Amino acid sequence: MEAIGRKRWAIAEGYIPPSSNGPQPQMTSHESVCLLNTGSQDAHVSITIFYSDQPPVGPYRLVVPAERTKHVRFNNLSDPATIAVDRDYASLIESDQPIVVQHTRLDSRQAENALLSTIAFAGSE
Amino acid sequence: MEAIGRKRWAIAEGYIPPSSNGPQPQMTSHESVCLLNTGSQDAHVSITIFYSDQPPVGPYRLVVPAERTKHVRFNNLSDPATIAVDRDYASLIESDQPIVVQHTRLDSRQAENALLSTIAFAGSE
Amino acid sequence: MEAIGRKRWAIAEGYIPPSSNGPQPQMTSHESVCLLNTGSQDAHVSITIFYSDQPPVGPYRLVVPAERTKHVRFNNLSDPATIAVDRDYASLIESDQPIVVQHTRLDSRQAENALLSTIAFAGSE
Amino acid sequence: MEAIGRKRWAIAEGYIPPSSNGPQPQMTSHESVCLLNTGSQDAHVSITIFYSDQPPVGPYRLVVPAERTKHVRFNNLSDPATIAVDRDYASLIESDQPIVVQHTRLDSRQAENALLSTIAFAGSE
Repeated sequence: MEAIGRKRWAIAEGYIPPSSNGPQPQMTSHESVCLLNTGSQDAHVSITIFYSDQPPVGPYRLVVPAERTKHVRFNNLSDPATIAVDRDYASLIESDQPIVVQHTRLDSRQAENALLSTIAFAGSE
Repeated sequence: MEAIGRKRWAIAEGYIPPSSNGPQPQMTSHESVCLLNTGSQDAHVSITIFYSDQPPVGPYRLVVPAERTKHVRFNNLSDPATIAVDRDYASLIESDQPIVVQHTRLDSRQAENALLSTIAFAGSE
Repeated sequence: MEAIGRKRWAIAEGYIPPSSNGPQPQMTSHESVCLLNTGSQDAHVSITIFYSDQPPVGPYRLVVPAERTKHVRFNNLSDPATIAVDRDYASLIESDQPIVVQHTRLDSRQAENALLSTIAFAGSE
Repeated sequence: MEAIGRKRWAIAEGYIPPSSNGPQPQMTSHESVCLLNTGSQDAHVSITIFYSDQPPVGPYRLVVPAERTKHVRFNNLSDPATIAVDRDYASLIESDQPIVVQHTRLDSRQAENALLSTIAFAGSE
């Protein structure tokens, strides 16, 4: 079966809320990128973080094994640098294999959580 | 009228919240895939579930009749296996007819519900 | 300026919550389709509603004037028939001019409202 | 590295809630457009606002520097005119460089906030 997806993706919206309510870690305010590799080869992925007021930071490297999904919390990225909370950012996701990328945020700053999700923008490659 | 849609779709984000608040079954925390078949022939659909730590499970088979929509709760899929709650997954949806696929989650873990929805990623076929 | 958009769109997800909280009509639970016509000619739009258990209903006809947007609540569609609440549906939107279509739901069944939105699926035409 | 994105985007949904709850300005009800420029040249962006009952207003001009993101609150646009709250609008975003555009709303009219986000519609250019 041919893998579904693309090799370059972008998420223009990025923001990690600075506070949380509810049981941890499920209800910690967070922002995630969900990666799906339906193919038969491991996907080597590089994430670059763009800011409004400084040069891009990255690459953050990770592997999505063949026929697996990986849901990554931006909060947990640390190498080469953590992502500051309460600050606008955006991300570029590049892979050596076709993957599918979706973006989700859980915002639990107030007592009741809010959710957003959107498919990332797929480049033409 | 020519049917609108594609034959291969993917949803990278999948997560069934482990608890719920509010009247059942409408306010049960759930994750749905909404399928639309605008064509004049029944669509035979196969869903494959991808996990982070085990091989894919499926296919889950269903039919979307001609000129009908079907909204499926992942919570209710049982053959060949139920989908565990509180666990990351992703899904691949394949059809023998063009269909349109959208993904929705109702999260009622806290007293007030949260919603997310996004169109799935459409393959080029 | 060339108009942006496509002539055929689909929204696989449709559901009008059966109850509401908060001041009316802003906080009434509702589902909207937002139509944008950036071109210099009026767009004549037909909406067809698909159900899970009966034949499609429509067309619902409306005009989006040149260089205007129109945000339509599905709750308010009445000709040829109203759309039942608490029931799954999907919609096909066809236009004689290129338009852009987005889908939004406000769910105020519980005390605090929830929102979802997604761009509709654009056909290749 | 080739920049990812397109030069014309549209957001059919636009609405700035008329009231807010929670600490300002983070929890002010707002609607944002998030712009990402991964390329090596500054992007000169023009936003045009479309209404249901009057001619379009614009262009609102801004620059997204090379390798930067810019998250713009529609609430803060003022030249040539502010955008009224509690009123439907839509937007067209045009750039001289490829960019990626995403749309987000925080609605804090009620005590607990609601979020929505979707990738904008990308024109073929």
